Amino acid sequence: MTSRSDIVDLIDAADAARYGAKAARLARLSKAGLPMPPGFAISTADGARIASQGAGALGPALDVALARLEEARGRRLGDATDPLLLSVRASAGEGASGAAAILNIGVCAMTEAGVARRVGLSAARELRLRLILSFAPVALGVDVDALEQALSQTPAEALAGAPPSGAAPSGDRAAELARQIAALEAVVLEETGAPFPATPREQLDLALAASARGWASPRARMLRMARGDDPEAGLGFVVEAMALGIGPGLCGAGSADSRCARTGAPLLSGRWLAQGQGEDAALGLRQPTPLTGHGADTLESAEPGALAALAEAVRGAEAAMADAVRVEFTLENGAVSLLDAVTLPRGARAAVRIAVDLAEEGRLTRAAALLRIDPRLLIEHLHPTVDPAAPREVIGRGLAASPGAAAGPVAFSADAAEVFAARGEPAILVRMETGPEDIRGMHVAAGVITARGGMTSHAAVVARGLGAPCVVGVGDMKLDPEAGVLSAGGRSFREGDVITVDGGAGEALAGAAPMVQPEFSGAFATLMVWADAHRRMGVRANADTPADARVARGFNVDGVGLCRTEHMFFEPERITAMREMILADGPDARRAALARLLPWQRADFVELFVIMRGLPVTIRLLDPPLHEFLPRSDRDLSDLAKAMGVPVAKVRARAAELAEINPMLGMRGCRLGVTVPEIYEMQARAIFEAAVEAAEATSAPVVPEIMIPLVSTNREMTLLRERIEAVAEAVREERERGFSYKVGCMVETPRAALRAEEIAEGAEFLSFGTNDLTQMTYGLSRDDSGGFMRAYLAAGVFPEDPFHSLDVEGVGELLLIAVERGRRGRPNVNLGLCGEHGGDPASVRFCELAGFDYVSCSPYRAPIARLAAAQASILARRDRDDGAPGAA
Amino acid sequence: MTSRSDIVDLIDAADAARYGAKAARLARLSKAGLPMPPGFAISTADGARIASQGAGALGPALDVALARLEEARGRRLGDATDPLLLSVRASAGEGASGAAAILNIGVCAMTEAGVARRVGLSAARELRLRLILSFAPVALGVDVDALEQALSQTPAEALAGAPPSGAAPSGDRAAELARQIAALEAVVLEETGAPFPATPREQLDLALAASARGWASPRARMLRMARGDDPEAGLGFVVEAMALGIGPGLCGAGSADSRCARTGAPLLSGRWLAQGQGEDAALGLRQPTPLTGHGADTLESAEPGALAALAEAVRGAEAAMADAVRVEFTLENGAVSLLDAVTLPRGARAAVRIAVDLAEEGRLTRAAALLRIDPRLLIEHLHPTVDPAAPREVIGRGLAASPGAAAGPVAFSADAAEVFAARGEPAILVRMETGPEDIRGMHVAAGVITARGGMTSHAAVVARGLGAPCVVGVGDMKLDPEAGVLSAGGRSFREGDVITVDGGAGEALAGAAPMVQPEFSGAFATLMVWADAHRRMGVRANADTPADARVARGFNVDGVGLCRTEHMFFEPERITAMREMILADGPDARRAALARLLPWQRADFVELFVIMRGLPVTIRLLDPPLHEFLPRSDRDLSDLAKAMGVPVAKVRARAAELAEINPMLGMRGCRLGVTVPEIYEMQARAIFEAAVEAAEATSAPVVPEIMIPLVSTNREMTLLRERIEAVAEAVREERERGFSYKVGCMVETPRAALRAEEIAEGAEFLSFGTNDLTQMTYGLSRDDSGGFMRAYLAAGVFPEDPFHSLDVEGVGELLLIAVERGRRGRPNVNLGLCGEHGGDPASVRFCELAGFDYVSCSPYRAPIARLAAAQASILARRDRDDGAPGAA
Repeated sequence: MTSRSDIVDLIDAADAARYGAKAARLARLSKAGLPMPPGFAISTADGARIASQGAGALGPALDVALARLEEARGRRLGDATDPLLLSVRASAGEGASGAAAILNIGVCAMTEAGVARRVGLSAARELRLRLILSFAPVALGVDVDALEQALSQTPAEALAGAPPSGAAPSGDRAAELARQIAALEAVVLEETGAPFPATPREQLDLALAASARGWASPRARMLRMARGDDPEAGLGFVVEAMALGIGPGLCGAGSADSRCARTGAPLLSGRWLAQGQGEDAALGLRQPTPLTGHGADTLESAEPGALAALAEAVRGAEAAMADAVRVEFTLENGAVSLLDAVTLPRGARAAVRIAVDLAEEGRLTRAAALLRIDPRLLIEHLHPTVDPAAPREVIGRGLAASPGAAAGPVAFSADAAEVFAARGEPAILVRMETGPEDIRGMHVAAGVITARGGMTSHAAVVARGLGAPCVVGVGDMKLDPEAGVLSAGGRSFREGDVITVDGGAGEALAGAAPMVQPEFSGAFATLMVWADAHRRMGVRANADTPADARVARGFNVDGVGLCRTEHMFFEPERITAMREMILADGPDARRAALARLLPWQRADFVELFVIMRGLPVTIRLLDPPLHEFLPRSDRDLSDLAKAMGVPVAKVRARAAELAEINPMLGMRGCRLGVTVPEIYEMQARAIFEAAVEAAEATSAPVVPEIMIPLVSTNREMTLLRERIEAVAEAVREERERGFSYKVGCMVETPRAALRAEEIAEGAEFLSFGTNDLTQMTYGLSRDDSGGFMRAYLAAGVFPEDPFHSLDVEGVGELLLIAVERGRRGRPNVNLGLCGEHGGDPASVRFCELAGFDYVSCSPYRAPIARLAAAQASILARRDRDDGAPGAA
Repeated sequence: MTSRSDIVDLIDAADAARYGAKAARLARLSKAGLPMPPGFAISTADGARIASQGAGALGPALDVALARLEEARGRRLGDATDPLLLSVRASAGEGASGAAAILNIGVCAMTEAGVARRVGLSAARELRLRLILSFAPVALGVDVDALEQALSQTPAEALAGAPPSGAAPSGDRAAELARQIAALEAVVLEETGAPFPATPREQLDLALAASARGWASPRARMLRMARGDDPEAGLGFVVEAMALGIGPGLCGAGSADSRCARTGAPLLSGRWLAQGQGEDAALGLRQPTPLTGHGADTLESAEPGALAALAEAVRGAEAAMADAVRVEFTLENGAVSLLDAVTLPRGARAAVRIAVDLAEEGRLTRAAALLRIDPRLLIEHLHPTVDPAAPREVIGRGLAASPGAAAGPVAFSADAAEVFAARGEPAILVRMETGPEDIRGMHVAAGVITARGGMTSHAAVVARGLGAPCVVGVGDMKLDPEAGVLSAGGRSFREGDVITVDGGAGEALAGAAPMVQPEFSGAFATLMVWADAHRRMGVRANADTPADARVARGFNVDGVGLCRTEHMFFEPERITAMREMILADGPDARRAALARLLPWQRADFVELFVIMRGLPVTIRLLDPPLHEFLPRSDRDLSDLAKAMGVPVAKVRARAAELAEINPMLGMRGCRLGVTVPEIYEMQARAIFEAAVEAAEATSAPVVPEIMIPLVSTNREMTLLRERIEAVAEAVREERERGFSYKVGCMVETPRAALRAEEIAEGAEFLSFGTNDLTQMTYGLSRDDSGGFMRAYLAAGVFPEDPFHSLDVEGVGELLLIAVERGRRGRPNVNLGLCGEHGGDPASVRFCELAGFDYVSCSPYRAPIARLAAAQASILARRDRDDGAPGAA
């Protein structure tokens, strides 16, 4: 902090850290030569000195600055014939947002006549009234209620009923205003024991001191803290000559958006209020009118020339800010003055359109345009969403398990959902929870709602894979499938009644809510092309079935990074064969059941390879524990026994044998592969035979990547790799065709990360399954974390949910260790990430920095990952360039 | 490998790597001046050359060595009047055990008369017969059956009926032997097409070549591999002059133990066979007789002078080997010759006694004595064991969950066990599985058997804590508690029938098996005193209750390293209060229920502190998920609801709410502490109040160490530490007493290990819970690993069960990372290990190398840990000394 006062002309106040954000913005606008009142900025350091010692602490510097301003404006503060009026606006330092402004400083008994000479007596008195009303509470601590009571005892039209400009004020009105001023000044005298400050300089000093002290008060610091602002942020000031929105000629104030905040279209829009100042429009005392259009009261109709001048100023502001802007302006006797220009707040779609348009207009580089978009905003482009403007009747709230929105008839069973689908009315499937038997119904449903379950429940995982909107854990709703009634939000719904699922908000709504449809073309498509051109990392999709692969290909991914083969086993015929395998006595019976699965799986793989032709496909061998394929209830187990023709005791015994205390840490993944070799042998065979057939069908080589899950020791890899090689050799001989393939390790146990060097020696790729790796690194089951995750996030124990955004400090370090060691074991080992973090922008950036070759995520998040990867590449390049010797 | 032959006199063959283990032993014995036949050693390098090129490859070196031997013995090979006879014995290189010997080389038609001059004609012919019988199959590849058939066509007493020494051979017998020799030589001629080697030198060369080739054959290599030997191990030879155990005067062969192999008492024992050679005693053709004792046929009775000479030689061998030995000897005409001396194979108790005795006799340093004992052997000292000599009728096999053995009446319920105990007949509790409700019955039972469960099942954990023998997962047994029948091993047992549980072998036996009782005094006690003097690391005990602490103190531990406070909640009254707490609505009701638990817990802590006075006590705050305290079956839940006077629906709802998919990774440990603050607050209060009271009672300060479980982020530590500090402050004020305490972190998630630096900044100690850390590092639930652990160990996927012996490569690296980072965060942070690995010697050694301050284990394993820690200290010191600049 300097001990000398630090006051500069606005044009020189570009340093936001020193003069606050508002001053810096105004400096930028001033530099661009835009029409603005002259002014100066007081640094935040000076603001702190004012808070402790009053404005006098600024010493002669304030006088000098004032003098320069007077000279620039050609008026003097307190001048009796043509006085200068001032505005004092707070300019908060970094990490905080500002405080209110005090306008019309300088109007007082002494100068009223001078002001009246310029704007008429009524307007002058109105300005004086406004000053007292805003100044007295803020700077003098006068009770607002007392002021309003005093006003209410005089005619109420004083403020609200100001006549349109041009009409001569009646003597009555001026007299009325004088009475009101007198009444307010009496309140001030009574409440403070002193008259309202009589001189403009006194007003200025007090305004500065009161604002600075208020900002520094403990209460304000606490408020900043509560808002998440930096409580230590400083406060500077912007002092400008007033542009008067009240007076003769075309006068008023308003705000203008350089582009449409909803669509991003390059159309000027906004609102203004004739004979108004600053925030009058927002106060709602009078209805502001649109700037544009052919209505009677638009500025365009009233004064096309003024609108043109405003439009030019807005264009200038946009250029100065290098972004779409929302401008605050005043019209004084037809002349436009800009008071501020902030970046335009905008919806997701507008953000994309504006960034692309600005780049195409040459105002931004493409890289800068890509950096402008928060990748998560793209979700709105990818799914239908409930129109934010539409009214919504919420009947239940749960977890936002899969984004998008859909409306349709309620179906209480998968079968009912299929019936509705057959009629061309995709249903909203509403269940307590879903299981493998619901898969077909989910495929044809428009959306899914469950009463139970968390973010990794069956319903949530499957819906995300399908890209269908889904809300889970809607605890308040009551479901009586027998009676066919859903009770929610105090209403009852029968099968066929229409409801809406809003998977983005995690809500169920009554009726069919109006939708905004997804938008893949236009600016979005352009942005994606640019993103692909800028990114280094590949973006693959997690695709479990040919249908998923088709969606993925539509999202222009670089391959399949994770095909969870178990999802191929849930169709009714297949799960029967799977269950036979599980109930089989010994390897031969197991092989017989698996032989029935082989053609299905092979056919799926052929289709997958053909769809993804030319792109890599990573297939994970069976991962879940076998009990996931058995029904759970006693009744379903009996049914299964009957259907299979085996004693129910045997089925129960097998189910009991397979039951696990901690399934996440149990007999699954490669442990199954090692101990029940027939399963992986069948899968390897299906993959290789499919590779041969797909290569013949497409006349292009297919190089499948076989991924082994849940590895914790290198010996698991080598053992399974040998078995896979044996199957490959057998298929090569049988088919008399050569083919190549890769075998890799899914790194999802901390131990696999630590042992990555030796594992990579026998693995062509390492793909990090960060879902499970996070669970194991924290010792935290995602399914069981619901009970305390909210409390943990609220208390800041976890800064973020580590299942949403990669825990860089813990899981991330394991990744870095594994990357370094994996490369030591095999310098060209391919490195990927295939957890849900692959669709999280911060995690994608981490992967870029860690040098991953690709990330893989749900197809519906692929555009997010593509943009995030592009941003990560751009930032990494920038960091490198900054760190380069030439730049140092 | 040198290209020059490498043959040395036996006395110079001390280098086992060069001449094989047997040659090295004989060199040691020779150097000690013990009575031994002269001989020389052929190196393993030469053995390899013989295998490829025959004995000729040795060139003149063999002639030179033979000449020296002839000179030393004063006889010449092939001499017609007094020929030298030779033995050729294999001396396997390191990593393998040897092959058979060929004796009596040098007796043939040409020398028979010369030998007969020395030993008589019959003995000479018998030696010749023996040579052919052993030489022809090994060196000439003649079929053994053919030889035996030829022999069987001549009188059968030829070998077995050799007359006692001194009796003159009848002419008939010599003639009979001549016919047998002729018959065997005819077989050799027929089978090989060549006569039996006619010259002694030919015999020697062929014996060497055949043995060397056999050793190098693929079949022998595979056998070595199958045995776990090094298939590449080399083979050297020991060639000695024969000491003839057949002939006139006192002749024979036998073996002698320098100390008792069972008890370790310093008493010579052994067996011998008059007129016998080498392995005759082992062949079982004639019954050998004891060396000592006053029976008619003992050596002591027959020739006390010879026994005295043998005893002196054995003492010499013991001195030379610096250990108790088993000696192989020959008596030739009254003179003792040692043929070999190996370290005495011995039982666990003998091992301790011998090591201690040798050290007290000054033959070993105490450090060397400590290193002699495999710490795991101490288990036999600590628990009753089934007499290994007794017959056993096994009725069921399961997992050896807790060592020791006990016999008693079968009890099918905890209540029944209490009834038997009241009658003074501690029972064997036999259950499907156990739960908290069985605790009292387990306390009074002699042993526990369950049909279900793994190494961390309730029964296994509790039994280990109690030191009671336990076998779990006995799948084959059928239990019908309603009918009161246990069916196992084809037999039925009713309540009260006596059975035996062998927790060391993991078996259930019918009836009361004879037991060997534990032995804490004598050599064992001495060894423990020495161990404590040599170890650097502390050894603490895991003790959950005052009763445990008393046992621990009896085992002379350095404190309590882990008190699992939840085990204090399972007694009937307490679990009721605990369940009320769980079912409570809101913090106030929870506090009320906890207030009832407080006095119990405080009283337990007071007792614990008083028992452990002067020693540190580490108390872990509540760790398990709350559902572990609720009953499981629907019926028990109803009973609970009735007892508590709450609706059963509420109890069921709460149980459903608390149920978890992966309890290991769920709402437990500090997650419970953070989200339900009242529990840890009560526990902290109980600890502090107890510390005050115990300090008053003992007039010594008590410094409790409070351990926070399942930490994954530093924020959990800081938040809970603050709350604990607040409780401490409150107790200080209420009690008007100062006290100090420590707060530490139980490191059991990989993330806590990675973040140890920041965690240690706010933690006075880090204690590694390697059970859970292993589960999370591998992604492997110990309870669910039973399904594949055996297969994994058998296939070598895991070299050892990582829950038994610390996985040095994975979990161990996390420990090393955490130790280094923890010290960075707090240089004097106290480091301990409190998983079950604390009782595993290899893991203890790892902890020594990692610089831990202590390990903590079950009280019953503390002696093992104390010895292992002493060994680790000794070895570490040795490594340091070896690595010191002076030693380099």
